[in-house]
Amino acid sequence: MKAAVLYAPYDLRVEEIPKPEVGYGEVLVRMRAVGVCGSDVHFYTTGRCSGFIVKEPFILGHECSGEIVEVGDGVDNVRVGDKVAIEPGFPCGRCYYCKIGRYNLCPDVVFYGAPPIHGAFREYSPAKASFVYRITGDMSFEEAALIEPLAVGMQAVKRSGMDSGSIVAVFGCGPVGLLTLQAALASGASSIIAIDPVEYRVELAEKLGATYTLNPVRINVVDYIDRLTNGMGVDVVFEVSGNPKAFNDALKIVRRGGVLVQVGMFEENVTFDPALIIDKEIDIRGVFRYANVYEQAIRLASSGRIKLKPLITHTFPLDRIREAFDTIVERKGNPVKVIVKP
Amino acid sequence: MKAAVLYAPYDLRVEEIPKPEVGYGEVLVRMRAVGVCGSDVHFYTTGRCSGFIVKEPFILGHECSGEIVEVGDGVDNVRVGDKVAIEPGFPCGRCYYCKIGRYNLCPDVVFYGAPPIHGAFREYSPAKASFVYRITGDMSFEEAALIEPLAVGMQAVKRSGMDSGSIVAVFGCGPVGLLTLQAALASGASSIIAIDPVEYRVELAEKLGATYTLNPVRINVVDYIDRLTNGMGVDVVFEVSGNPKAFNDALKIVRRGGVLVQVGMFEENVTFDPALIIDKEIDIRGVFRYANVYEQAIRLASSGRIKLKPLITHTFPLDRIREAFDTIVERKGNPVKVIVKP
Amino acid sequence: MKAAVLYAPYDLRVEEIPKPEVGYGEVLVRMRAVGVCGSDVHFYTTGRCSGFIVKEPFILGHECSGEIVEVGDGVDNVRVGDKVAIEPGFPCGRCYYCKIGRYNLCPDVVFYGAPPIHGAFREYSPAKASFVYRITGDMSFEEAALIEPLAVGMQAVKRSGMDSGSIVAVFGCGPVGLLTLQAALASGASSIIAIDPVEYRVELAEKLGATYTLNPVRINVVDYIDRLTNGMGVDVVFEVSGNPKAFNDALKIVRRGGVLVQVGMFEENVTFDPALIIDKEIDIRGVFRYANVYEQAIRLASSGRIKLKPLITHTFPLDRIREAFDTIVERKGNPVKVIVKP
Amino acid sequence: MKAAVLYAPYDLRVEEIPKPEVGYGEVLVRMRAVGVCGSDVHFYTTGRCSGFIVKEPFILGHECSGEIVEVGDGVDNVRVGDKVAIEPGFPCGRCYYCKIGRYNLCPDVVFYGAPPIHGAFREYSPAKASFVYRITGDMSFEEAALIEPLAVGMQAVKRSGMDSGSIVAVFGCGPVGLLTLQAALASGASSIIAIDPVEYRVELAEKLGATYTLNPVRINVVDYIDRLTNGMGVDVVFEVSGNPKAFNDALKIVRRGGVLVQVGMFEENVTFDPALIIDKEIDIRGVFRYANVYEQAIRLASSGRIKLKPLITHTFPLDRIREAFDTIVERKGNPVKVIVKP
Repeated sequence: MKAAVLYAPYDLRVEEIPKPEVGYGEVLVRMRAVGVCGSDVHFYTTGRCSGFIVKEPFILGHECSGEIVEVGDGVDNVRVGDKVAIEPGFPCGRCYYCKIGRYNLCPDVVFYGAPPIHGAFREYSPAKASFVYRITGDMSFEEAALIEPLAVGMQAVKRSGMDSGSIVAVFGCGPVGLLTLQAALASGASSIIAIDPVEYRVELAEKLGATYTLNPVRINVVDYIDRLTNGMGVDVVFEVSGNPKAFNDALKIVRRGGVLVQVGMFEENVTFDPALIIDKEIDIRGVFRYANVYEQAIRLASSGRIKLKPLITHTFPLDRIREAFDTIVERKGNPVKVIVKP
Repeated sequence: MKAAVLYAPYDLRVEEIPKPEVGYGEVLVRMRAVGVCGSDVHFYTTGRCSGFIVKEPFILGHECSGEIVEVGDGVDNVRVGDKVAIEPGFPCGRCYYCKIGRYNLCPDVVFYGAPPIHGAFREYSPAKASFVYRITGDMSFEEAALIEPLAVGMQAVKRSGMDSGSIVAVFGCGPVGLLTLQAALASGASSIIAIDPVEYRVELAEKLGATYTLNPVRINVVDYIDRLTNGMGVDVVFEVSGNPKAFNDALKIVRRGGVLVQVGMFEENVTFDPALIIDKEIDIRGVFRYANVYEQAIRLASSGRIKLKPLITHTFPLDRIREAFDTIVERKGNPVKVIVKP
Repeated sequence: MKAAVLYAPYDLRVEEIPKPEVGYGEVLVRMRAVGVCGSDVHFYTTGRCSGFIVKEPFILGHECSGEIVEVGDGVDNVRVGDKVAIEPGFPCGRCYYCKIGRYNLCPDVVFYGAPPIHGAFREYSPAKASFVYRITGDMSFEEAALIEPLAVGMQAVKRSGMDSGSIVAVFGCGPVGLLTLQAALASGASSIIAIDPVEYRVELAEKLGATYTLNPVRINVVDYIDRLTNGMGVDVVFEVSGNPKAFNDALKIVRRGGVLVQVGMFEENVTFDPALIIDKEIDIRGVFRYANVYEQAIRLASSGRIKLKPLITHTFPLDRIREAFDTIVERKGNPVKVIVKP
Repeated sequence: MKAAVLYAPYDLRVEEIPKPEVGYGEVLVRMRAVGVCGSDVHFYTTGRCSGFIVKEPFILGHECSGEIVEVGDGVDNVRVGDKVAIEPGFPCGRCYYCKIGRYNLCPDVVFYGAPPIHGAFREYSPAKASFVYRITGDMSFEEAALIEPLAVGMQAVKRSGMDSGSIVAVFGCGPVGLLTLQAALASGASSIIAIDPVEYRVELAEKLGATYTLNPVRINVVDYIDRLTNGMGVDVVFEVSGNPKAFNDALKIVRRGGVLVQVGMFEENVTFDPALIIDKEIDIRGVFRYANVYEQAIRLASSGRIKLKPLITHTFPLDRIREAFDTIVERKGNPVKVIVKP
């Protein structure tokens, strides 16, 4: 079968490799759509990403969907022919974190595209049967691949503990920011302020339901939101940009007793004024991947409450995967989500 | 000023009474729209309702909105001329329940239309300034009056702790049921099963977003939902009917670890199988009025996420208030919410 | 090896049976102490218990501890020679409930002594390695066997969401009641009212930390607690007796916004006044076994915060297991917890 | 009456001032014991503390207890002669934060000893009746004054959401650290690691129940706790020192999914590695004073679960208040809590 193998930064080759076997409790999936994530791009350009380093030829990719072509022993939740979205981390099922239901924190998780575990940019991938989820006929494979970044947004909203009717701000309108925005809306946010310096992104944010959009280069975000909320601040901030300035702005615009959910990854240390956390009795809550949100994400997308299609700006076959990556690296044609179809 | 005074069952007279004075921290509201609640009707037909008894000539009504015409000392959140929805219970602000933020449980609350506190079916009512909420230009007074029953639905959803993407059932599609349904949808329910024996009510439920509607007279609700959910059951049930049969069905159709929110009031004792609560580790959670949801309810209604207008089927001036009550008592013209305009 | 096999009510025979094999991810435990639970006694006297029926010769017992004598493949958390308490339910690890961390609700759980799964009254039992927990040198096997009923009490406290400094009532002072009482104390209850009609049980409750003890035959519990709390009621009630009268009293004595945790199993339907749930906005929360509390229970018992030894009133070798059961059936010598040592 | 008035740094004078009047809903308290808080000392030495600046002659003090000598209109919860602990912040009772039960975040709170509101170092102080709490005969006024710093510890534990049986670390063993430690123990912590560079403080921590005590000058805290917990980390860290190094260590030693509660105030900005928050999906939660914990704190102290007396190292009459402050400033005689008795 064919797979896209990363040998070194920018050296991504489509090659023939052996088709994987299916073990107990596993299924084999004919991959149909795989999204290119920012972390994939980071690996592609630098060979590393947040602690993980590519040391040997490696297959990236974890935002994926496909069709089940083989079913191992001990599988009863899906059948050959089922179209599925794949939750790409398979936790051990035995450790403390798995037992308490926070399996995203399992130290022994097997996660697609996190070295040394090969990822989804290939024709066939094995998956743990209890982590694939049937999609309905209306959902395309491309949309189903976006359930993965949507799951991050759903996790962010779940972690926020947001009440229905809340006023929310989102820093960063890349794919995860836009999906967090939609997850917050679907969960009852009554107003959403979307913040991003890139024009076409905030335009898409507005189209997807943002009540206000701000370009932080042109507008003083803290002053604007202070006026907008009569000095009260917003209930919840989702910081999806990984920008230290945004983090500090977030601490300023969140109301007393509010919540800052940190979704974006930073490339450097962050310096902040801790008095804000104490005097306003704020919560800062990290988000790492997701747990127990895939089915809910699929339901919300299936019912049309969350729109995935508008995020898909480019699609490439597996043979042209380098173009897919370069589209993002060079920001050609205002890319939001780029999909590869193996 | 004019007021509608209940002297005895079915003896409701529109009379001249003195205009109230405004105290410290209070405002005087020119009432513009007052909804007729099921509890008002209960008082009207029997002179009593869930423990409260009308002993002296009494003014009913608590679902209300109006315009501020006078402002007492110590008021700075609203001004004369403001259009407002009124949260009709004014808690003491000093007791344990007020201090912990569950002021709906304040034993010394002053609540419109709960004897001996006169209610809203009059031209002018005094209100505690911190419990009136400005509405925006788009919202009519009739809609603003419905913020009160919507607040019950919001409280029910808040009490449920419902996750986004949940599957939900609602027993009872009267005004509170329909608003609970909408509050659940706005908070992220992905499918809602609405159950009511009255056809025009379930039709309205469908129009307002119910995914499935069931007539419990024609269909075995438990079997239907069992099949629909592959034997799993629903995440949350809102029991808004006050029917013991519905309560027992609710216990059966809620999934393991699920939540039954009891909103409807019963007229009799209830018998149930307690093994269901234990074996499924269920939560049953009561709802009493609401606390800290008015602003959120107004925001969701203002943003169009929750639709109030479709519930308003009849409107009467204060002089014809008896017709308003009789419309509900005799179910003339498929009433859902009947509004009186003083 | 020897095992105690139930053939029919009161027909419990100690016999030779084959020693079990150890599978992947499993350990073999040399059982050292097994407590007799009320449910075991129910099976012993009637052949059935809450839905489960003994149809073939069957081994009871699930409150157990022992020593690891064999370790299967894929086990790295324990070693041969380790002394362990065994969490006697082994969930599937794949279903919705396992994934969300409420594995006690797993429909495919394999639970010791719940037909058709054989239990712990035998010399050797296989156990899933991730559900055995090392105990420290200070804890005896008899005490370690009591971690199981303590886990029920811990689950009850966790389900209650009890705040530190709460006032708590416990109906029923059998072993689970006494351990719930201690778990509540260890979690910050500042006063505990223990209620039981059996004198030696409330005496033990007092010895273990109950602030007040009541005999419901002699005292009107509702009046007493009403006076004691100045009409406020208690924050949390643990109903461990399974008595419908106690359930109704519990609804009356719990404060507004309070929580009734239902731990005891009933033998009949329950009738109650639902107005109490609504008007006081009460939560009723069921408890089914436990999840994610074993390690915490062991730590609290090891640190001396919870005392297990005072509950152990009788100990018998496996050969005299009938005496163990009869001690409870006939209430000989004021039994609290009776232990069998295989 | 006499009061201690701060004119400028180190210029603290005991003078005669007029006795205050009692308003509606207020009581007048004959102050009996007032603790010297770190913030009082900060004002004393610098004239300012975390944003507040002393501009006019000013009375410090907020950790206080006394006897009610006068009762205003509208007061029914206490009587003349009652001994009380005083919760020294009186919120407005009308704003969003008061209504949701987080009145510690009320922007209009009137707080003893926070300029320009005079504090408790005087013979008589007026107090809002709903914020004074009767103490029982066994509790001394000195202990009752310590309910205030204990309330901070209780708030920290409440904010942590700590489960019973947790493993906890506390950075900083000053009075608030020691009381947080005890509040955590009383709420079910099974092991507590107390960290402080001052020997007599960690000794007191051990006496009050710390399982392990560490001097961070001599021991590498991160390595030690890593070994102690087999690389897992602790469930909850209470950072009470306000030391940026401790904050960073706290992020390292808290387990995945764990909680860092920030109690201590910093004098500078903090720099940290945000990857820890994301990769471990940590919560950081600020603590600002307290809300709804006073009664619970009194109950735990009254029942002997929390010991206040061992913290009281020095007592001075009001006339010698400068000695009280100097004892702390100069660390004379290993001070922990210094009490002034007006």
